[in-house]
Amino acid sequence: MELLKRKILEEGEVIGEDILKVDSFLNHQLDIEFLNEVGREFWYRFKDEKVTRILTIESSGIAIAAITAQYFKVPVVFAKKNISRNLDTEIYTSEVFSFTKGTTYQIKVAKRYITSQDRILIIDDFLANGRAVLGLKDIIEQAGAYLVGVGIVIEKGFQQGGKTLREAGVNLHSLAIVDSMRDGKIVFR
Amino acid sequence: MELLKRKILEEGEVIGEDILKVDSFLNHQLDIEFLNEVGREFWYRFKDEKVTRILTIESSGIAIAAITAQYFKVPVVFAKKNISRNLDTEIYTSEVFSFTKGTTYQIKVAKRYITSQDRILIIDDFLANGRAVLGLKDIIEQAGAYLVGVGIVIEKGFQQGGKTLREAGVNLHSLAIVDSMRDGKIVFR
Repeated sequence: MELLKRKILEEGEVIGEDILKVDSFLNHQLDIEFLNEVGREFWYRFKDEKVTRILTIESSGIAIAAITAQYFKVPVVFAKKNISRNLDTEIYTSEVFSFTKGTTYQIKVAKRYITSQDRILIIDDFLANGRAVLGLKDIIEQAGAYLVGVGIVIEKGFQQGGKTLREAGVNLHSLAIVDSMRDGKIVFR
Repeated sequence: MELLKRKILEEGEVIGEDILKVDSFLNHQLDIEFLNEVGREFWYRFKDEKVTRILTIESSGIAIAAITAQYFKVPVVFAKKNISRNLDTEIYTSEVFSFTKGTTYQIKVAKRYITSQDRILIIDDFLANGRAVLGLKDIIEQAGAYLVGVGIVIEKGFQQGGKTLREAGVNLHSLAIVDSMRDGKIVFR
């Protein structure tokens, strides 16, 4: 997606060799007009998949999933990372290892919001090692639902998530794949 | 907002006397068509305020703020609760006491995403004791920006947040105010 690549080159900041900061439009401030273009692109790529629900994970995936869902006219469900006293007792859970933090956390989805009839599209902002997406995929499988595909805004092509998911047969669409960020220079695939 | 009240009566679940669970459309699953009606209503109420940015807080405020921002054609900034290794060093912070958890947490906004020229609308899902909104208001004041108003989906009228904000002169619009939930019966103001 050319608009996204331009946006990354103009506004992204590379920190070290593996952090790409896109706080100005995707992770802290949200450029809503731009997110609409992202949503439209996901629609274009998955429109024939008869998607019934979009699944994402708090927090950074929520805005993208909500805007994208307008094109598909389906509800969004966001997996929770944090304990909430209000969450159902009937929940699917999966363990996700965070490379960034070096710890494992649980993600949770109330059972009543995924059924075995669902055709689910996973949407997230970044794909790095892919553990969060694998956790969501695990929950979809527990529910007996069907994963139609995964839409990612920015894939870090130098980490393993994309390879892992593609080898597992997942219909993965990343709107931009960054293959390296050496010396602050962003190289797209 | 009649549609919201109907939705609360039909889908909301009262737990004890103070928890209103609206997981099916606002806090876990997101009914995007409904959120568009909420966004339109906030637009109607604040459209003359020359809003330049919408400020919210992760996670539950993000979807509502993002959908609402489409009507105002302005960016959203969401305050972060969690430590992120990617966040700017130049940040505004404020302390928020959580009655639910009995602890204090910090909220953070990178300085570059609020300027003294900004006219800011705060959007959030729930208003209970108002501490989160007061934290956001504090950050807006630190930045020298102007708070044009606060848009809340559901206010718990039996808690102190609404009273506190109105007495402080805040232009507060709550789309539904629940005055009591005794014996599972929801009474609107």
